[in-house]
Amino acid sequence: MRYGRIPDETIRRLPGYLRALVFSSEQGRQRISSRTLADLVGANPWQVRKDFSYFGDFGTRGVGYDAEKLARQIRKILKLDVVQKAALVGVGNVGSAVLTHPGFRVYGFDIAVAFDVNPKKIGRKIDRVVIEDVSRLRTLKRRNIRLGIIAVPRHAAQETADKLVVAGVKGILNFSPRYITVPKRIKVITIDIAMDLARLPYYIPAR
Amino acid sequence: MRYGRIPDETIRRLPGYLRALVFSSEQGRQRISSRTLADLVGANPWQVRKDFSYFGDFGTRGVGYDAEKLARQIRKILKLDVVQKAALVGVGNVGSAVLTHPGFRVYGFDIAVAFDVNPKKIGRKIDRVVIEDVSRLRTLKRRNIRLGIIAVPRHAAQETADKLVVAGVKGILNFSPRYITVPKRIKVITIDIAMDLARLPYYIPAR
Repeated sequence: MRYGRIPDETIRRLPGYLRALVFSSEQGRQRISSRTLADLVGANPWQVRKDFSYFGDFGTRGVGYDAEKLARQIRKILKLDVVQKAALVGVGNVGSAVLTHPGFRVYGFDIAVAFDVNPKKIGRKIDRVVIEDVSRLRTLKRRNIRLGIIAVPRHAAQETADKLVVAGVKGILNFSPRYITVPKRIKVITIDIAMDLARLPYYIPAR
Repeated sequence: MRYGRIPDETIRRLPGYLRALVFSSEQGRQRISSRTLADLVGANPWQVRKDFSYFGDFGTRGVGYDAEKLARQIRKILKLDVVQKAALVGVGNVGSAVLTHPGFRVYGFDIAVAFDVNPKKIGRKIDRVVIEDVSRLRTLKRRNIRLGIIAVPRHAAQETADKLVVAGVKGILNFSPRYITVPKRIKVITIDIAMDLARLPYYIPAR
């Protein structure tokens, strides 16, 4: 089944719903209302219902959504129903935070390998992931890794992106605070933690 | 002037536009087209034009937007035309990444203070910010700090949120991978780096 018509904004919200549904199941609640879901992700109930309307009918009025069934569907849409292997480049503060983040498991990710240029870090393990020399990036294709995470200093971001592209990566999560240029066929998602803080003051009343 | 009718999704994109406009100005380009802006933030030109239509008319057909004027307007809407002071709680991997992140300056933020519970960290400085004991959180109101950043381990997230609320904080950026509960009047933005990776496979073609 194809879901070609799901808007990007809905796709952007799906991981949040999935996290909330997993949380709900863990708490022993099998049914969840659009209101509870909305509260957990910080949206409106109508938004939740509209988002789910794009890929089927999962709710029963007054009974709520079947959390497990809906979670399974979201995983399928996001292609998280198979293990997705990713490679991390740069094991500084951000990279270390990625390696020790408990959240990737929720989505079925496997950060299979990490790379760095610092000889002192190479060979070390963080959370069962061995840090390899960045020259070994070219082994990614052979290892069937199609996702790359860039967590290098800004001056090395473009060079790292270029190497990931050569290594056959199809999608990049970029934590580096600068723009990177890649061929159109590669999907880039940029995370700038400062950018998220930047929309907070808007919501705060004047003194 | 009030901009009450700007949709949340537009607000969410404004910091990205601002960053692109600042970047453009730094490169010496005073005019920027909606296409160039769209390419920089990873959106469509029509989306850019629609977003800006909510708060005025800044573009001239065939000439593009006045980068500085538009940047000034976005700063005003986001309340970034005044220095916004923020307090960081938790100086682990994520917290250290926040303190050394060059991006906050772009938006006019001042991470004025950091807190931790680890006596070995207290008194140390990271990037000119002194780390204080978490018991001093209650001094925030007196210091006129209304934004809090939570970067503590998940088990301490709710307790930290409670303390920030008592300390008079009005907005919270939460990096902790769990839900926090705060009074409705407090705005919370949650960053889950795993959640951003989770929407990447959707965009990647099957083998």
